[in-house]
Amino acid sequence: MVETIEWTADGVVMIDQTRLPRETVYVTCRTYQEVAEAIRNMVIRGAPAIGVAAAMGVALGMLDSDEGDFDAHLERVCGALAATRPTAVNLFWAIDRMKRVALGLRGHSLNEIRARLIDEAVRVYREDIAINRAIGANGAPLVPDGKRVLTHCNAGALATAGYGTALGVVRAAAEAGKKISVYADETRPFLQGARLTAWELQQDGIETTLITDNMAGYFLRSGEVGCVVVGADRIARNGDVANKIGTYSVAVLAKENGVPFYVAAPISTLDLTLASGDGIPIEQRSPAEVTHVFGVPVAPDGIAAANPAFDVTPNRYVTAIITEKGVAYPPYEESLARLAG
Amino acid sequence: MVETIEWTADGVVMIDQTRLPRETVYVTCRTYQEVAEAIRNMVIRGAPAIGVAAAMGVALGMLDSDEGDFDAHLERVCGALAATRPTAVNLFWAIDRMKRVALGLRGHSLNEIRARLIDEAVRVYREDIAINRAIGANGAPLVPDGKRVLTHCNAGALATAGYGTALGVVRAAAEAGKKISVYADETRPFLQGARLTAWELQQDGIETTLITDNMAGYFLRSGEVGCVVVGADRIARNGDVANKIGTYSVAVLAKENGVPFYVAAPISTLDLTLASGDGIPIEQRSPAEVTHVFGVPVAPDGIAAANPAFDVTPNRYVTAIITEKGVAYPPYEESLARLAG
Repeated sequence: MVETIEWTADGVVMIDQTRLPRETVYVTCRTYQEVAEAIRNMVIRGAPAIGVAAAMGVALGMLDSDEGDFDAHLERVCGALAATRPTAVNLFWAIDRMKRVALGLRGHSLNEIRARLIDEAVRVYREDIAINRAIGANGAPLVPDGKRVLTHCNAGALATAGYGTALGVVRAAAEAGKKISVYADETRPFLQGARLTAWELQQDGIETTLITDNMAGYFLRSGEVGCVVVGADRIARNGDVANKIGTYSVAVLAKENGVPFYVAAPISTLDLTLASGDGIPIEQRSPAEVTHVFGVPVAPDGIAAANPAFDVTPNRYVTAIITEKGVAYPPYEESLARLAG
Repeated sequence: MVETIEWTADGVVMIDQTRLPRETVYVTCRTYQEVAEAIRNMVIRGAPAIGVAAAMGVALGMLDSDEGDFDAHLERVCGALAATRPTAVNLFWAIDRMKRVALGLRGHSLNEIRARLIDEAVRVYREDIAINRAIGANGAPLVPDGKRVLTHCNAGALATAGYGTALGVVRAAAEAGKKISVYADETRPFLQGARLTAWELQQDGIETTLITDNMAGYFLRSGEVGCVVVGADRIARNGDVANKIGTYSVAVLAKENGVPFYVAAPISTLDLTLASGDGIPIEQRSPAEVTHVFGVPVAPDGIAAANPAFDVTPNRYVTAIITEKGVAYPPYEESLARLAG
């Protein structure tokens, strides 16, 4: 398995997810600003992975702190990392966690603070892998044996520190001996499904068929699909789920065809400050991502294009939410609070 | 407005729809085999347009007939044109119409038969434009003023002899003074929405925003969309509609959000031999259309891909079917029979 992100003596090393699968290129971010740029440009993407990147970015940024400027520098570093992408709450969760650790170390030597922040960032990374393994173990029993799993976007090893959330469930089901094959939505405009999910599963030897996003309904209606499993970027208290654009459509089509729709995500994806998904900010990205594919124009010059990067799936379409602490079923207000508590 | 297809002294001239909008190239088919290849390779596409192409292909093919071989040659020409694409019924409708005319002229001079077949093919072409104008006039009152129209694929001038079916409704509504703007699904894998619909509407000055297919649900849920209008490749007696892959998903999402879903198509799209959409053959095209965009690979080498080119939307999702003879409402078994009768 490829490493998504790693702390090294040279800085934070990431595989460049904008260039996969055509090129396997690793980039080294030597400053927190470079980490912020990598998040913004989707060199690294996926809610848990950008949480890990942000944690490492804070540790990297605080290597440059000095005593007189400590608090202001911490704010600067955290602010720059938080301003990259608005939807995935794991980003803010990781930054807050690092900030709390840093502030708790006030009065210690700068060297100690720096070492402890690096430790904490590496802990966020390691915990994420363990969390994904637990999500996989909790989710595997839900996956029907001998049927297709449909997934959207990439909630795999590349979207996390490793193993994956939705693909962690797929992997755990396959490791448990179930006969699993996958329909991977290509997930325009960024093509995370075609470029990343197809590539990851191919490397694992899990039978995968790539489809365009607009084929999901056709295959959900066909009876071949046993369940849908996707990741999440933010989950409100009531179980409304923000995830990659198109997730809402898949959820509606799954429900219409009686196919279970599962969301696999760490508890850190829960935003308990939000009563419902209506309050989740939806990132609007550049129209050029829609009008061009790998730099090739696919539409007439000058055409307007919309590019909301996420949508919100209301809780009524979500069969269950699979977390590292267990599986939440409706009513989510209660079940999620219990798991988070 | 660009000419989609034209009968000329040199042969059948078509604009190459595989190269739009980046290049405006006209190809001249000098044999019926070249017309068949153009249909198969989607140089020309869209159910009514391939009907016109097939009619012209029969006329072109019969220029080479001789008296001893007339019936066998007619079968050969019609068979080759019919074997190009299985889903759109207009293709078979046009071939049957030409065949009936040819057989009815048995005993006439070959020169007269040839001239009459050319006349008939040009009549199919001219009638199609008139039919589209009538569809537009019938559909325009259904389009809400001041809201967005969402459309999928291209059911425009390029999909017909001219004016369009779904886009004919949009054009007629705009010509009637309604304030209309359009969300155009890009329509992977062939990108008819991005390449053709966006281009047509841009040339007409109708405000258009391109979206990826997986954004349709997001915008249908947003309340901005007043109605969906799409074309059709084949409609069964009960009103089940085969159309470009992804249409079913849009229909389900429209219904889920209380947005009217209209199908605009000529009566020749009706297949009265089929009780329901279950009997409509769905063309499976090359996986390379999914794994590559304009020749650029978007997925790992060796990945499997599915490519059903159409899907069937059950009649319960269809608010109305707009034809040149009037608007059919459920129950379609009755309303379509009445319009067709």
